[in-house]
Amino acid sequence: MENELISTEKLEQLIKEKNVKEIRKIFEVVPTIDIAEACDDFEDISYLIFIFKIVKSEYTADLFTELSSESKEDLILAMSDAELAKILESQFADDIVDDLEDLPANLVTRVLKNVPKERRESINRLLNYKDNTAGSIMTTEFLTLLDNLSADEAINMIRKEGKTKETIYTIFVIDNRRNLVGTLDLDDLIFANGDEKISDIMNMDYVTTNVMDDQEEVANLMKRYDLNAIAVLNNENRLIGLITVDDIVDVIEQEATEDMSKMAGVAPLENSYLETKTLKMALKCAPWLMILLILGTFSSMILSKFENALSALPILVPFVTVLMDTGGNAGGQTTTLIVRGLAVQEFEPRDYLKILWKELRVAFLTGLMVCIFSTIWFLGEMYLNIISFDGYEIANEVLSGWPLFLARLEIALLVSTTLFLGIIVAKFVGTSLPMLVASLKKDPALISSPFVTTIVDVCSLLIYLGFAYILFSNILPAL
Amino acid sequence: MENELISTEKLEQLIKEKNVKEIRKIFEVVPTIDIAEACDDFEDISYLIFIFKIVKSEYTADLFTELSSESKEDLILAMSDAELAKILESQFADDIVDDLEDLPANLVTRVLKNVPKERRESINRLLNYKDNTAGSIMTTEFLTLLDNLSADEAINMIRKEGKTKETIYTIFVIDNRRNLVGTLDLDDLIFANGDEKISDIMNMDYVTTNVMDDQEEVANLMKRYDLNAIAVLNNENRLIGLITVDDIVDVIEQEATEDMSKMAGVAPLENSYLETKTLKMALKCAPWLMILLILGTFSSMILSKFENALSALPILVPFVTVLMDTGGNAGGQTTTLIVRGLAVQEFEPRDYLKILWKELRVAFLTGLMVCIFSTIWFLGEMYLNIISFDGYEIANEVLSGWPLFLARLEIALLVSTTLFLGIIVAKFVGTSLPMLVASLKKDPALISSPFVTTIVDVCSLLIYLGFAYILFSNILPAL
Repeated sequence: MENELISTEKLEQLIKEKNVKEIRKIFEVVPTIDIAEACDDFEDISYLIFIFKIVKSEYTADLFTELSSESKEDLILAMSDAELAKILESQFADDIVDDLEDLPANLVTRVLKNVPKERRESINRLLNYKDNTAGSIMTTEFLTLLDNLSADEAINMIRKEGKTKETIYTIFVIDNRRNLVGTLDLDDLIFANGDEKISDIMNMDYVTTNVMDDQEEVANLMKRYDLNAIAVLNNENRLIGLITVDDIVDVIEQEATEDMSKMAGVAPLENSYLETKTLKMALKCAPWLMILLILGTFSSMILSKFENALSALPILVPFVTVLMDTGGNAGGQTTTLIVRGLAVQEFEPRDYLKILWKELRVAFLTGLMVCIFSTIWFLGEMYLNIISFDGYEIANEVLSGWPLFLARLEIALLVSTTLFLGIIVAKFVGTSLPMLVASLKKDPALISSPFVTTIVDVCSLLIYLGFAYILFSNILPAL
Repeated sequence: MENELISTEKLEQLIKEKNVKEIRKIFEVVPTIDIAEACDDFEDISYLIFIFKIVKSEYTADLFTELSSESKEDLILAMSDAELAKILESQFADDIVDDLEDLPANLVTRVLKNVPKERRESINRLLNYKDNTAGSIMTTEFLTLLDNLSADEAINMIRKEGKTKETIYTIFVIDNRRNLVGTLDLDDLIFANGDEKISDIMNMDYVTTNVMDDQEEVANLMKRYDLNAIAVLNNENRLIGLITVDDIVDVIEQEATEDMSKMAGVAPLENSYLETKTLKMALKCAPWLMILLILGTFSSMILSKFENALSALPILVPFVTVLMDTGGNAGGQTTTLIVRGLAVQEFEPRDYLKILWKELRVAFLTGLMVCIFSTIWFLGEMYLNIISFDGYEIANEVLSGWPLFLARLEIALLVSTTLFLGIIVAKFVGTSLPMLVASLKKDPALISSPFVTTIVDVCSLLIYLGFAYILFSNILPAL
């Protein structure tokens, strides 16, 4: 993304000129992320240090969060403890935790040393939650109000305490035993009369999440209930954190990326694509290729067992690729639709029969269309000698008694019927496997399309060669 | 999703008992979407009508939005115009537009007739924006304030006018020529002193979007800049709408689903999976299978041209499936990573050389690992007679001069080397094609994995059979 108001060169120029006024103005009119990206490309870390010295800390705290991990490292190394402490002071605990996750161990220690004492505890706690749980994305800086306050009192409390909180748009309401009893939307508070009690304007139909819940579940809850923020409870049902919708936007995107990777047979990357090293990336890709290579042995076995037949009637060979491709493609279509439907909770494993029935009808129609089309196409291929039917001694010899057109039609129908059945098998396997995996409470995205393809390949080959034996029993040698 | 507080049966029971008090209480403590799902399963529409009669309109307006399109239809048909008008009065324009999109034409007319007059115009305008544009997801009910107001004046204005607006958390600030000059976050307003001018507390580093922009671009902007809401401008740079982050959550999910479908070779569904009819679904799936079937002709052609060679050395045949699967899988991995990286704007087409260089190194390492593994695996397969090397007249005859182990090693190396090169081709094509399509400003997800597979298949087969001719020139018949 480009921002015409700012560039690395322009910033460097302004810093060289020590044009403090203009630089400060940039921070007012240009979004921080755009400035951060310009800063990431600075030739020398001294430019960045200059900026941190002259710009207000409310801006530099944001800037620090948005910098790349390399810039962060360089900056921390170049700063004194006092300077570092000043930056950390204006940051939210969950942002510091995100920063820490990018940094090498020695810098983590230095950062933690310079975090205000009262914050260190919650940061340490946040660091201990497992990746991808609600705990790992929540913040501990949320606002609670007692349910017996009036609206005016509440607004005054918010003015006093809200500044250091992640959000004041959703406020948690507790009773005097500190139990969560409701959530309060800031807009309802603004619209309320000054003397109305919070307990009368708060929402009692709130939902909560457990700190150990998967972030994907949290995202689904917030989406379903259109929430700005959700309360995070621990196992004793105590309120311990808050997750805001902007964190969820990232989760949804990240989970979709992860599902896509898994389905394509790439182990999920811990970091972004660009931040994943070459060797690591190869290690994410290679194992799945090897597993599928092993699974592919079944197809090879079948072709090997039927080698006599393929030698006797070599026209069977060129169609093998078409059969395998189409089966794989049809399986991939269904697997993708099913895995995605499960992920966005459009349906559940218990809807299996309903979905299967739908997919089988889709498969029947799709198969029929493809079958009719392919019969014509294959006849054309053979007629135009794209796939040569004659010219082979064996084929000619064994087929000499047949009118050529009939023999061609027979082959075309053999392949097309196999395609038809292959598509049905593909949609059946592509529906059933992800549903089965989901019903076992595992991630259905693990059923990658290549895996379904492999199964469908085997079935298609068996159908194909089995039919070939029935049709051409007089020609083909015994197995 | 289950909610233990509510079920269709329980609601039906309460309605039969005319337990108005309990039903009203349910609306206070249970999220509306959960109630709506229970209502969708009512046996008779009269239950739903009862609810709409006894529950406060602030709740029923939400309930109406969350109902399935069937329930909405039934309800509208059963209601009088006055009842319908009452529901529509408390709904936001963009929600009504969403409702209308689900309804048959005759009901659309009836709904529009009963919408308050002053709203009808903006609804008609919203209905005219093309699907997937900013205009199609924006609302026209946003709040603007003049920049010369004080904070206290602003809060009073918000109290007066904010209730009918989609959000008051982000307010647009205009000058007296009605030009957008900034955005105001409600929290900044709350924290400001009462006499501070809005122009001093507003954000000037705001971003905007054009009404014709694609919703995916809007989502990317809001994500990048962590926005609660974004201003939508028309071509004359006039403020005409607002998009809130909760709409974006749906967009992000929808776009990810669409990309996944496209990449799996399913034309994007206009409705959700369950709402797409069987025939329509088949029509989404079949064309791509046919296109790929046509593209697959190239592989068939190659196999057909080399038929003599495959008959002469039939052990070459079983490995064809392995080659094609692995090439396809490797290509799918890269295509997915690249298409996704482009979609989430991690990189752009102009980063092509950088990404290609990375993918080629990944391909080299991945290929090497797979190559070493597969050599051993193939030797094992042949040694264990899973793929039978001997037992064929032709094979035996032509290979009679060779020690069996050497012949097996030669075959294993031939296949493994082809795998290695195939993986490199796959990652090259899988990187280049999506990048090329993106640089032409088309959606890179159109480069579905099956499409890449088809190209890689052809290359792998040519490499495989070409090498075979070099290695076994003494055995294989002339082409």
